[in-house]
Amino acid sequence: MINYPNGKKRILQEHITDTSRRGMALETDINTTNIYYLDRDIAVIHKKPTPVQIVHVDYPERSHAKITEAYFKIPSTTDYNGIYRGKYLDFEAKECASRTSFPLFSTVHPHQIRHLEAVMRHGAIAFMIIRFTAHDETYLVPADKVTTFYNNAQRRSIPYSWFADNGYLIPLTIAKPVDYLTIVDKIYFDQKGGSS
Amino acid sequence: MINYPNGKKRILQEHITDTSRRGMALETDINTTNIYYLDRDIAVIHKKPTPVQIVHVDYPERSHAKITEAYFKIPSTTDYNGIYRGKYLDFEAKECASRTSFPLFSTVHPHQIRHLEAVMRHGAIAFMIIRFTAHDETYLVPADKVTTFYNNAQRRSIPYSWFADNGYLIPLTIAKPVDYLTIVDKIYFDQKGGSS
Repeated sequence: MINYPNGKKRILQEHITDTSRRGMALETDINTTNIYYLDRDIAVIHKKPTPVQIVHVDYPERSHAKITEAYFKIPSTTDYNGIYRGKYLDFEAKECASRTSFPLFSTVHPHQIRHLEAVMRHGAIAFMIIRFTAHDETYLVPADKVTTFYNNAQRRSIPYSWFADNGYLIPLTIAKPVDYLTIVDKIYFDQKGGSS
Repeated sequence: MINYPNGKKRILQEHITDTSRRGMALETDINTTNIYYLDRDIAVIHKKPTPVQIVHVDYPERSHAKITEAYFKIPSTTDYNGIYRGKYLDFEAKECASRTSFPLFSTVHPHQIRHLEAVMRHGAIAFMIIRFTAHDETYLVPADKVTTFYNNAQRRSIPYSWFADNGYLIPLTIAKPVDYLTIVDKIYFDQKGGSS
């Protein structure tokens, strides 16, 4: 069973699917969606900058600094956070090329799992967004389901079928290519739907 | 009049003041404090990475990427955010070398002001932390006071005396060199102190 809000079909999905968009596509789609939310004052959610260790900076002009040596750092938190309907919201997003499973342990760092657990203890709305590019499906999975799987893992990958049972298929429009707040409304704010 | 919690004196301040610590000192002090909060599960608050536009990356070894050309970007949000007592918390921190005024317009970007306004509309605890190094004082100023000054500004700098009237002097200990949550408790959670 796939959780899907309002029984709507993904009628727009075909329009924006082609192989060239893969890889960075999910990040681009989430950024587009976040700008939509921001412009309409629905939510204030931003991607954090990529953490970089800066080693050397040149000043070819007085006013213009050029970084000439730097290295990527392992992130200590998730990539996205912000505020929605008065609540702190926090999530990590990953694209997955496999048809059969999501490689949780090789994709998500242990301190990102600890971070999700910490923000949940403090009352956050926390989740992961995972896109199976081969299936052209993007799921929201509440963070507690991911951390429970992680902590009790018999295997290092989550089977694709697990997402249909534990996740929610995120609807999309052209303006909101990953309209995850529709799902957040349903599972975190709808009295019928569930929690808090 | 200086707002100061519990009438405590800054007895530890002398220990950790010397000129070598200036410049990056406030950031270091806030990071130390945030680690204290995180380790004791009091709050989950992180500094965002410095936003960098990456132009060129070398791969001298297969597993090791070296960024060889990158530039600093203007931040579109504040530097710090996270969750405390179930609330979204957001702030910007600045050090000020002047004895007489804080150069608001040359230090804080317009979109950082808009960001503070946006998160306040959505229910955030939002503020600025400003350290006057020459006075060895660190103030918390609620964001609405800063944005009101900004939007009605007759001048581009905020006089030092304004902070004593509108800000709260942040206490410190060695373990918590900028113990701003003490002030947050007082002004955002204490029924006697004020708002929600």
